Amino acid sequence: MITSPTHTGTFIVFEGGDGVGKSTQITRSADFLLKAGHEVVVTREPGGSALGTKIRELLLGSEPGSVSDRTEALLFAADRADHVATVIRPALARGAIVLCDRYIDSSLAYQGVARGLGVDQIAKLSEWATDGLTPDLTIVLDLAPEVGLQRAAQVSGTPDRMEQESLNFHIQVRQAFLDAAAVDPNRYEVVDAGADLDEVTQSVLIAVDHVTRAPGGDPS
Amino acid sequence: MITSPTHTGTFIVFEGGDGVGKSTQITRSADFLLKAGHEVVVTREPGGSALGTKIRELLLGSEPGSVSDRTEALLFAADRADHVATVIRPALARGAIVLCDRYIDSSLAYQGVARGLGVDQIAKLSEWATDGLTPDLTIVLDLAPEVGLQRAAQVSGTPDRMEQESLNFHIQVRQAFLDAAAVDPNRYEVVDAGADLDEVTQSVLIAVDHVTRAPGGDPS
Repeated sequence: MITSPTHTGTFIVFEGGDGVGKSTQITRSADFLLKAGHEVVVTREPGGSALGTKIRELLLGSEPGSVSDRTEALLFAADRADHVATVIRPALARGAIVLCDRYIDSSLAYQGVARGLGVDQIAKLSEWATDGLTPDLTIVLDLAPEVGLQRAAQVSGTPDRMEQESLNFHIQVRQAFLDAAAVDPNRYEVVDAGADLDEVTQSVLIAVDHVTRAPGGDPS
Repeated sequence: MITSPTHTGTFIVFEGGDGVGKSTQITRSADFLLKAGHEVVVTREPGGSALGTKIRELLLGSEPGSVSDRTEALLFAADRADHVATVIRPALARGAIVLCDRYIDSSLAYQGVARGLGVDQIAKLSEWATDGLTPDLTIVLDLAPEVGLQRAAQVSGTPDRMEQESLNFHIQVRQAFLDAAAVDPNRYEVVDAGADLDEVTQSVLIAVDHVTRAPGGDPS
């Protein structure tokens, strides 16, 4: 088994609460990178692999309160393990740029902080699940949850199990993303997602451009 | 959240490779305990809870080699977390005797030893998933894998993903169960499953009778 190989591609993660505009910024970043001649893989968690789509159905299709906190955390970790092994690592090994909608920080925020399972425990779980694969850049799209949840409701219509949680839950989630970014500012870019859409995109693309031009990439 | 409550019921696990006769001995033990007036809950892993049946389909329905080792281990842990939270702990809290087909030792044997993920790591994962719930008695039905696999094939017809593994894999699994039993002989009973069926049952029932008569039960 190969553990934590040095990869030649670039792994960029987009984090933030529901409705902050992750999908839009990922699409725009992908366009930008494709025009620059890169191979780009756009993916997401949960549900970024074939097995993961089935795990995603179990996770998001259940009624609120019906899945125990530890079960939920372990299912997210299983999804992540499969995603890294079958999608992300092979793409990075080919030299592609991987744009991923949510990764470890979402688990730290939702399960570790908001569900109270503990950031350290969830971090260990994710580190083991991914065999230590760390993003080269994580872009945190930061927005007040009141605004984000309203946007998300307009897009999707029916709120899923996570969106139905209390406002306080989502406030904790937002703070957890900001806390993660503060610990390692070299690998994080916090962008005000409440700004004008094109301004948000500009901030995102500057960070994306910078990390994809960095010589040699960052072995994780 | 209530962690590791002292329970009044008794938790008995049946372990061993495929075809050693776990189902038969569980059925006979249940009959024996029901006649003695106990509430008995018969269950299994994976797939002992509603969500678990869906996880079991993901685990056993996949092609060999298609699920990464860590993904497999995390799915088993998720199944176990749900099973303990929704089935086993509530039954023990009512004072029932729970007879469970496979538990943590199966993960230690299959994922920890035979898949090479490490017994310590898998033990930590299961301990977290179950919030530390330990069986009062584990009965290991011990049998040469050559015999067990032949028996299993006669019963089920088509071998599942685990049964298709190499003979060496199953030899390692057998040894792992024996090693687990050797560490804590007070909580384990190793029974020669190659003996005459009624002799096997007699050995099993003596151990079951002993632990269910023990005054006060064993808080885990």
